[in-house]
Amino acid sequence: MDKIKINVSMAVIRRLPKYYRYLDELVEKGITRISSKEFGKILGFTASQIRQDLNCFGGFGQQGYGYNVRELRDEIANILGLHKPNNAIIVGAGNLGQAIANYSGFRGSGFVLKAMFDINPRLVGISIGDIKIMDIDDMGEFIENTDINVGIICTPKEGAQSVAKRLTGEGIKAIWNFAPTDLEVPENVIVENVQLSESLMVLAYLMNERDRMENAQ
Amino acid sequence: MDKIKINVSMAVIRRLPKYYRYLDELVEKGITRISSKEFGKILGFTASQIRQDLNCFGGFGQQGYGYNVRELRDEIANILGLHKPNNAIIVGAGNLGQAIANYSGFRGSGFVLKAMFDINPRLVGISIGDIKIMDIDDMGEFIENTDINVGIICTPKEGAQSVAKRLTGEGIKAIWNFAPTDLEVPENVIVENVQLSESLMVLAYLMNERDRMENAQ
Repeated sequence: MDKIKINVSMAVIRRLPKYYRYLDELVEKGITRISSKEFGKILGFTASQIRQDLNCFGGFGQQGYGYNVRELRDEIANILGLHKPNNAIIVGAGNLGQAIANYSGFRGSGFVLKAMFDINPRLVGISIGDIKIMDIDDMGEFIENTDINVGIICTPKEGAQSVAKRLTGEGIKAIWNFAPTDLEVPENVIVENVQLSESLMVLAYLMNERDRMENAQ
Repeated sequence: MDKIKINVSMAVIRRLPKYYRYLDELVEKGITRISSKEFGKILGFTASQIRQDLNCFGGFGQQGYGYNVRELRDEIANILGLHKPNNAIIVGAGNLGQAIANYSGFRGSGFVLKAMFDINPRLVGISIGDIKIMDIDDMGEFIENTDINVGIICTPKEGAQSVAKRLTGEGIKAIWNFAPTDLEVPENVIVENVQLSESLMVLAYLMNERDRMENAQ
């Protein structure tokens, strides 16, 4: 992937997983090639949007042929780094942490969940599937011995910043954050926030907009 | 809000909740006005991006003054429809459903959770906070009697489509979907998907990209 341009816009990056997901489905259906027009129809994008997005990474299609589905899927997997194993821990083993521990999407994205941590003595010691909930005071040692590089924060809003500080203090440089708060972290630490409230507000907007249009008719 | 243009791009819509969230924090801090430049710094956007986004809805700032923080927050709340109460139910009362039931973000976005439904007899009858888990066979009657307009799907992937069909069959026209699958719904039904796997893949990308840059140095 020598052709990758750095500084691709985040809007394009955020569309790549969708490309990957649909290409993977096409591979499973046995479809070997697809035009940008057909692919756009499936995704709800224009053909030109798709060509423009993929051109950020060097472009993969051929005029008059379209895209080789399997090749494109594998290229995008490569760009996304899905082939690289990443070891993760969850901090906060309540309902949300347990739901995430059961989340089947880890497998396809190269992440492997290694342990969960909590401060609640009633949770420490039990297992979710084959993942053990451990005391948060044992987290530092575990991170060091198990080559953990991702921390998943599933605590309430109030505890999240101190957990982030503990994780980065132990050398963790990537955080998947479910707590509804902006974390302050050292500059070299990546934080990907799952903003449920933003998704809910978008739903509210779309519902409101539909009502407005229906009332205008 | 007569000035609203319809057909604003989804990319702009998806940024509005972030504007709202930060403005709400500024109001709480007692800040009364802000320039697009200062606001951009907080959000990590350019001033021109912010002006362009807000112009889609008529524009609210004044040259040389900036934005009135409280007014802008209230305008955005209005655009997002956050003042409109929406009654919601959760289908799927496992860990994820219970985590969502405890989710504090409902209050600020106009949604009120009224009940949860599941097929598992071991869950039916128990309560999460003051929300009761009911048998899914009682869902139709409940929707009819309680003026429910949003269904939140927290089932595994496999059950999601049949739940969506049941919900829309009962007249539900908006779905917040946590199941990692694309739902097929009638044209007038709004589906907002929470795509955890896409967020995880973006994290993988950013980690991979950082490694690549560090190795190139």
